[in-house]
Amino acid sequence: MAFLTRNEVFSCFVFYGVLLVIKMYIIAIITGQVRLRKKAFANPEDALRHGGLQYHREDPYVERCRRAHINDLENILPFLFLGAIYSMTGPSLSVARLHFLVFFLARVLHSVAYLFALRAPTRSLAYIVAQIPCVSMALQILIAVAAYA
Amino acid sequence: MAFLTRNEVFSCFVFYGVLLVIKMYIIAIITGQVRLRKKAFANPEDALRHGGLQYHREDPYVERCRRAHINDLENILPFLFLGAIYSMTGPSLSVARLHFLVFFLARVLHSVAYLFALRAPTRSLAYIVAQIPCVSMALQILIAVAAYA
Amino acid sequence: MAFLTRNEVFSCFVFYGVLLVIKMYIIAIITGQVRLRKKAFANPEDALRHGGLQYHREDPYVERCRRAHINDLENILPFLFLGAIYSMTGPSLSVARLHFLVFFLARVLHSVAYLFALRAPTRSLAYIVAQIPCVSMALQILIAVAAYA
Repeated sequence: MAFLTRNEVFSCFVFYGVLLVIKMYIIAIITGQVRLRKKAFANPEDALRHGGLQYHREDPYVERCRRAHINDLENILPFLFLGAIYSMTGPSLSVARLHFLVFFLARVLHSVAYLFALRAPTRSLAYIVAQIPCVSMALQILIAVAAYA
Repeated sequence: MAFLTRNEVFSCFVFYGVLLVIKMYIIAIITGQVRLRKKAFANPEDALRHGGLQYHREDPYVERCRRAHINDLENILPFLFLGAIYSMTGPSLSVARLHFLVFFLARVLHSVAYLFALRAPTRSLAYIVAQIPCVSMALQILIAVAAYA
Repeated sequence: MAFLTRNEVFSCFVFYGVLLVIKMYIIAIITGQVRLRKKAFANPEDALRHGGLQYHREDPYVERCRRAHINDLENILPFLFLGAIYSMTGPSLSVARLHFLVFFLARVLHSVAYLFALRAPTRSLAYIVAQIPCVSMALQILIAVAAYA
């Protein structure tokens, strides 16, 4: 376990990164439950198993869950890259934790705002707040490695 | 090459991780071939090159390939993160290989079930089986780094 | 900062990887601007804030931006994995930089070709050229770790 816990910043990043992966899994589970409850299946073979081909159809709330999930792919997956590299640039633990925590909380709020259709611009604000630590990390990494371009 | 092969578990993870990336690339190639064969292009400029704007259209099998690919993004990309970190928590090689192999085989079955539209719930079962090692790795990582939250 | 800059190839990879993440962020920003300008919102709550539910609608250029973004997820995110691992297999800096640079330039061209709807097959060629260093890295990694399967 030496490598993982030798770098406190990296361990802190891993903690929030894994929680965000679990958050993404939860959206996938919710999507599946909504499909079953609303009987709206993307594939005919699933519809056939759950009552008939008439349930091979779209549903607005399923599409909302899908958008929340894809937005996570667009934002959380790049964070997993940026956070790991940023942890290797030697930031102070408190500053790094602030980056990770702001991203984590803003992305949780983003999912809540999406799934509960909270009034605009709640979701957009959560998205923007989550981008701030990402852009900060990206710039700090670029400065650290610019000499190796 | 020292770093890559110093950790046997990590090397084992990398082996299956890269195979799964290649599997994703294969779905992209299949999607492109189906677009050409069925003449169903997402972009007007592609349709124009292949016979005319009437081929700027959707096709159910192309959409199936797209769903298979996006499901891979949702599951294989987080695995690439979890597997790398899990490899640094010091698991035994045999237990770790079991995690990677179950995920790998289940995701290959998932793609086959999707592309051949196998009877439900084959694809859903493959999805669930693949999630088991992921959740197991996520929990083991959280336990390893919980002190650094 | 020791770890990050101890490996020149890795630092070079990180430089181009972070630039590509920023490139993905820029597509997200463009998509948002196009939604506002064309008044085409994916969510009713966003439409309500910007003039009314009639703006909860699709727009062909927004969909084009979405396809460009998802294609990035399918290709740039796997590159972030392959490039990091490949950097640990001990390649020469010049050969490795060539891999990263070809991928970077081809993906920038891919985005430009997508957003400006350049004549086919510009975008497809950019896609294929970007895949060449990825497949090359994948094969070199597999050779390096094949013994650990």
